[in-house]
Amino acid sequence: MADDFSVTPYDVAGTVDYDRLVEKFGITPIDAQLESRIKRIAGEVHPLIRRKIFFAHRDLNWLLDQYEKGNKFYIYTGIAPSGGMTIGHLVPFMMTQWLQEKFGAEVYIQIPDEEKFLTKRDPKLTLERIHELAYADALNIMALGFDPNKTKIFFNTDYAGKLYRQAVRVSKHITFSIVKDAFGFTNETNVGALFYTSMQAVPAFMRSVELGKNVPCLIPLAVDQDVHFRVARNAIEKLGYYKPAIMHAKFLPGLKGGAKMSASDPNNTVYLDDQPEVISRKINKAITGQQATAELQKKFGGDPDRCSVCQYYKYLFEPDDEKLEAIFNAEREGTMLAGEHKAALAKRINSFLEEHRKKKEAVRPHLEDYILRE
Amino acid sequence: MADDFSVTPYDVAGTVDYDRLVEKFGITPIDAQLESRIKRIAGEVHPLIRRKIFFAHRDLNWLLDQYEKGNKFYIYTGIAPSGGMTIGHLVPFMMTQWLQEKFGAEVYIQIPDEEKFLTKRDPKLTLERIHELAYADALNIMALGFDPNKTKIFFNTDYAGKLYRQAVRVSKHITFSIVKDAFGFTNETNVGALFYTSMQAVPAFMRSVELGKNVPCLIPLAVDQDVHFRVARNAIEKLGYYKPAIMHAKFLPGLKGGAKMSASDPNNTVYLDDQPEVISRKINKAITGQQATAELQKKFGGDPDRCSVCQYYKYLFEPDDEKLEAIFNAEREGTMLAGEHKAALAKRINSFLEEHRKKKEAVRPHLEDYILRE
Repeated sequence: MADDFSVTPYDVAGTVDYDRLVEKFGITPIDAQLESRIKRIAGEVHPLIRRKIFFAHRDLNWLLDQYEKGNKFYIYTGIAPSGGMTIGHLVPFMMTQWLQEKFGAEVYIQIPDEEKFLTKRDPKLTLERIHELAYADALNIMALGFDPNKTKIFFNTDYAGKLYRQAVRVSKHITFSIVKDAFGFTNETNVGALFYTSMQAVPAFMRSVELGKNVPCLIPLAVDQDVHFRVARNAIEKLGYYKPAIMHAKFLPGLKGGAKMSASDPNNTVYLDDQPEVISRKINKAITGQQATAELQKKFGGDPDRCSVCQYYKYLFEPDDEKLEAIFNAEREGTMLAGEHKAALAKRINSFLEEHRKKKEAVRPHLEDYILRE
Repeated sequence: MADDFSVTPYDVAGTVDYDRLVEKFGITPIDAQLESRIKRIAGEVHPLIRRKIFFAHRDLNWLLDQYEKGNKFYIYTGIAPSGGMTIGHLVPFMMTQWLQEKFGAEVYIQIPDEEKFLTKRDPKLTLERIHELAYADALNIMALGFDPNKTKIFFNTDYAGKLYRQAVRVSKHITFSIVKDAFGFTNETNVGALFYTSMQAVPAFMRSVELGKNVPCLIPLAVDQDVHFRVARNAIEKLGYYKPAIMHAKFLPGLKGGAKMSASDPNNTVYLDDQPEVISRKINKAITGQQATAELQKKFGGDPDRCSVCQYYKYLFEPDDEKLEAIFNAEREGTMLAGEHKAALAKRINSFLEEHRKKKEAVRPHLEDYILRE
């Protein structure tokens, strides 16, 4: 039976059935046992794992085996700029920052400033424009509390002197057939887009190249990005490196619901750079799981799973499980109406972003120190 | 009617009909008028042009128009290492050196050390091995007398920091369909090979990028390489740069005849690094246009056009037209037998290479000065 949703790095459409996705992608749910193992090693477990937002993985048990044998892993993640950074982008980066802290991991952050140029038709999305966005993203990322001594960021077009040679090695093991099937490319897809997945693969073994020995790698990502690594993991193994382990996150829903908050759809998206009044206005228009009128809502209650406001709390803005449960219950039982519900969230987001802006200003003078160039 | 020969950068097969190739590729013969124009501007005309070894072009009249208006061109050429440099490779480089001298042109030499890695199956052809070959090629090239102040060489994997960003811009205008048709690629071709033509395109407009204004470019090349630029010229024009002008050379025949002397077929090839006794032995086995026996040869004469020995004189080792005609006549009239014919050529080649080795040693300490790195 054909699925009524689609998940690739270039198209997320329909209502994503994550259980079905696990089967389709051949990935493994993060179960109670694995969660306990993480908790045992890390001393605690992050809400993003506990709440099954990071819901699946590849080879995470192997990675922890290596870790417990004293073979530390490094972490690789990234972001491809097409618009400003959104609160949805916080999910993998917050996870990464926590993992760095708990496991003492080096972090490599790739900002592929060519990807959206190659895969989108928007004429305003020039390489120069994306490079500006990339720089702004780097600042937003470093403000999240990454360890300055263990974190490196690089933009692909600036760092190609290091990346291209390794990408060539990867690319020899990836055919047109493979990327056609994996990404839904056609004969009319440009050759830069066809090649690109090889560039995204490199940081997953780059530290092994640098150190001259095999180092395990963990990649926390939004699940649409798994496609790149389904392709790349085989190529990386053929080159003699460990296949990277992966942790997969669900998508943060858009303001109007839908599969995914997208940086290229401003009306559906909260950007980290949005001003407080913009945030309040946007959140006020967000979809909730509530009934059509206040009266009906009081009578029948709402559905927090269909409510973007509830979901933003769950993903990002209410780490306390009991408080989150209270919010969900209020929605379910109709005791909290949409207006106050939204106003409270907007306040919470604005307070987070006010703090975030301060952290950005503190990082700004040092940002160049974290950026790898030729 | 299907042709019984094939010319792409990845396959030259059959007996090449250069007149037919002109039609197939949509290129223009270098006619008497164009030859006169070159002679008028340069003061003389190189034997490689006079003898129609450089037999065709794209936009060369436009390039000379620009030159006469004071808009100087630069020259771009290259070599993709797969084995040692051969005497066949001398053809475009000698042409380039002469053009540099006569037109005062800057020269960019690309050594794409990833191309043969991506397009050949030979497991010994690792990136590391090709990089060694590339360095040896650079030394051989600079020994040919290029102006040290106007010549820059770069290896793609070392110089990708500059090249990749521009290659991405090119690649957006090249689809799988285009490279499939142009190069005979299939669904099983690797994505590095599909992308590669974008890397080869960059130096054809790189100087315009560097100077921030449009600079005409001339590319002397062996005609199989035209395919890359048939594809790339359209993309380059879409980026707003001048399409490069091109001069096309015929292939130097192999020792055993055949379409092309190939660096990857040692028995058919004279390498610049071959020792004198190896040269003598190889030339002694070369095919000639002579009859089966000395007696028949004396009676009926031979065919210099089918004689690799005669062709090597024509392409490279006898610049004097009268002397060349004497050699051809001796072959035709049967007055020179194969043995002495070959011995004389071997002596000529060895004398050239002895001189060449001295020039290499003189260049060696300065080689790094000509190589562009990040």
